[in-house]
Amino acid sequence: MKNAIVGQSGGPTPVINASLAGVFQAAKQHGIDKVYGMNHGVMGLLKDDLVDVDQFLDSDLKIELLRRTPSSFLGSCRYKLKPYTEDDSEYKIIFKNLEEHEIGYFFYIGGNDSMDTIAKLASYGAYVHSPIRFIGVPKTIDNDLAITDHCPGYGSAAKYVATVMKEIGRDAACYGTKVVTVVEVMGRNAGWLTAASALARRDDFEGTDLIALPEIPFDLDRFVDKVAELQAKKPAVLVAVSEGIKVADGRYVCELGSSSHASDAFGHKALTGTASYLCSVLQERLGGRGRPIELSVLQRCAGHLTSRTDIEEAEMVGGAAVLAAIAGKTGKTVVLRRISDNPYQVTTDLATCDELANYEKKVPLDWINEDNTDMTQAFLDYATPLIQGELAPFYVNGLPYHLGSFKE
Amino acid sequence: MKNAIVGQSGGPTPVINASLAGVFQAAKQHGIDKVYGMNHGVMGLLKDDLVDVDQFLDSDLKIELLRRTPSSFLGSCRYKLKPYTEDDSEYKIIFKNLEEHEIGYFFYIGGNDSMDTIAKLASYGAYVHSPIRFIGVPKTIDNDLAITDHCPGYGSAAKYVATVMKEIGRDAACYGTKVVTVVEVMGRNAGWLTAASALARRDDFEGTDLIALPEIPFDLDRFVDKVAELQAKKPAVLVAVSEGIKVADGRYVCELGSSSHASDAFGHKALTGTASYLCSVLQERLGGRGRPIELSVLQRCAGHLTSRTDIEEAEMVGGAAVLAAIAGKTGKTVVLRRISDNPYQVTTDLATCDELANYEKKVPLDWINEDNTDMTQAFLDYATPLIQGELAPFYVNGLPYHLGSFKE
Repeated sequence: MKNAIVGQSGGPTPVINASLAGVFQAAKQHGIDKVYGMNHGVMGLLKDDLVDVDQFLDSDLKIELLRRTPSSFLGSCRYKLKPYTEDDSEYKIIFKNLEEHEIGYFFYIGGNDSMDTIAKLASYGAYVHSPIRFIGVPKTIDNDLAITDHCPGYGSAAKYVATVMKEIGRDAACYGTKVVTVVEVMGRNAGWLTAASALARRDDFEGTDLIALPEIPFDLDRFVDKVAELQAKKPAVLVAVSEGIKVADGRYVCELGSSSHASDAFGHKALTGTASYLCSVLQERLGGRGRPIELSVLQRCAGHLTSRTDIEEAEMVGGAAVLAAIAGKTGKTVVLRRISDNPYQVTTDLATCDELANYEKKVPLDWINEDNTDMTQAFLDYATPLIQGELAPFYVNGLPYHLGSFKE
Repeated sequence: MKNAIVGQSGGPTPVINASLAGVFQAAKQHGIDKVYGMNHGVMGLLKDDLVDVDQFLDSDLKIELLRRTPSSFLGSCRYKLKPYTEDDSEYKIIFKNLEEHEIGYFFYIGGNDSMDTIAKLASYGAYVHSPIRFIGVPKTIDNDLAITDHCPGYGSAAKYVATVMKEIGRDAACYGTKVVTVVEVMGRNAGWLTAASALARRDDFEGTDLIALPEIPFDLDRFVDKVAELQAKKPAVLVAVSEGIKVADGRYVCELGSSSHASDAFGHKALTGTASYLCSVLQERLGGRGRPIELSVLQRCAGHLTSRTDIEEAEMVGGAAVLAAIAGKTGKTVVLRRISDNPYQVTTDLATCDELANYEKKVPLDWINEDNTDMTQAFLDYATPLIQGELAPFYVNGLPYHLGSFKE
């Protein structure tokens, strides 16, 4: 039996390491000799910068710690391979390195950009008749992967967002004074995570009053009117907006307020300042106080507040990837298929990476209410199962303990 | 036995309701007839807007839920009474309302501004020979109250800050690229909470690399040099700064970057944008990426991540306030006295509210290292016991459940 290699790519999630644990455990159980890790994804692989996963996961305790450790344990990257038809030099290096380490199975934990990487590697592998199997393991808090019912990472991020909306809402209401709190949530083109703010409405909390997703062109005047309408009824108004909301002419709302926004390797603009801009507009037009809150990276790294369902599914898709690779599949990614909402049941399946690469799945428009201010019951039915259950960190001397980096 | 009234004032904390639970339970145990709550502190009392605490805490489950519910359950206010020697009209209203409800004991849960309120009411009470006893119950995440060893609310906020520094640090390091993350922590004049970022250094985490407190005049050039020095050794540098850091001429750092900053009823300026300004300077001078993160209100309202030690002490000071009132004390506040660090032992004591009012206790300068970039062991010995233990929320259907507001 050959060796395996596993990498993590793209933005971290609180459960991306549970997928790593899932890959590792299934590999060991199914007789794969050695598991290598890529130090910072394919960037590490290109430099033959690999780590020995067997060595740092040499006890059950460490595997359990890994499951409860947020952010990409192996290190991540945002690196786009050129098509090999244009330039195959990097592919040659990668395959040479893989062959030298007798790799038979390649696992890549990532989002839609990472699926592009797997698709390209599998395609090149077929072209050179390589026996190496390339399988994707889905992760993204954005939940914007096609085909899969939902994506590991989303459940925990959604639970984080809904939880802090309840807490922020309580905080904001405590003075009884007029204040509009605008919470900015990650999601550049798909509003899944912002939509999770709708989960905060429970019998102990009034909920998020107004939700704006990037799926709907943002109308500033209408927004101000809506807030004014809400504030006529209650002093503390709670708003959730996606960082990526755009006005009708296609400009990001955050660009209306400031000037330059840098782009990353995939051409994604850095979006920030949406809440801050909206608060300044609200203060100017309505008076009173606007309080912008950016949830920032905590929504994707809060290992102290995760969904047990999400962690278990993240581990499961890792294991399913190993089974698929051993069965000879390549260029595929594991996806989740929902059998039913209630009782909640899911199973794994496979999809072709090509179908997921570089495509962002949006929130269905009929899951947004007619007013474009809230989510419908269909969304709540979809998302509520994903936030169920907790898996507390191991607290040592008062703080969550994480698996120490292999670099230390 | 007469009735009691209790109010909450100033900024909320995750454990301010544990103090309310402590007051309530001790009052019931010691034969106080009825417990009223002020709706939004003395502002509610002035309008005779009271709530029946007995009614909404009519079961053990509700008391337990209250202990795990963040933000001020009774509603808070920031309201400064004029000295009665200048204008006694509000005092007359307050005492009339108290007498009508047959109040014998007045408890006010708050920080140094609230201690000012208690001192004034007690002083007026003495002047008019009122038998009503006025006792303060300390709370503030800022930990800036004099005399008391530490303040309920601080331990949970410190635990939150240290926890998220670990998580944010892991997130920032995952790409292996150059990035300076500047985390802005609450604290306008006292750096206690920012200092808690030093607790993040453990054997599984390198820790916060650079800490800037308002106790030390901020030197921008030196800061940039220090960051450059750190970044020569490691790509991802983690910085914690107090929102209230000031340059040598007395201007807030956040004022260097922007224009207007509103003030509240106590004349406190709204401080925000410190991290954002510092990141823009770092990017300009050092290149690379700067990522500002404002912990915002979550550091004071994250009921999902509290210190059990803190919750228990918050409850204890509430109970001690009742005992003090029954013993005939007035114009006093409960304080905590530490008997030892290890084993950690504390007891309650009383101090005169005048001594605490309007005074902010700073971090001792010899708890800051010589370089002014980190905390010494003395601080760690002081703060570590305060973050020990957890008290998880009651999770219902995936989210923390809170005691529903009496207004609903």
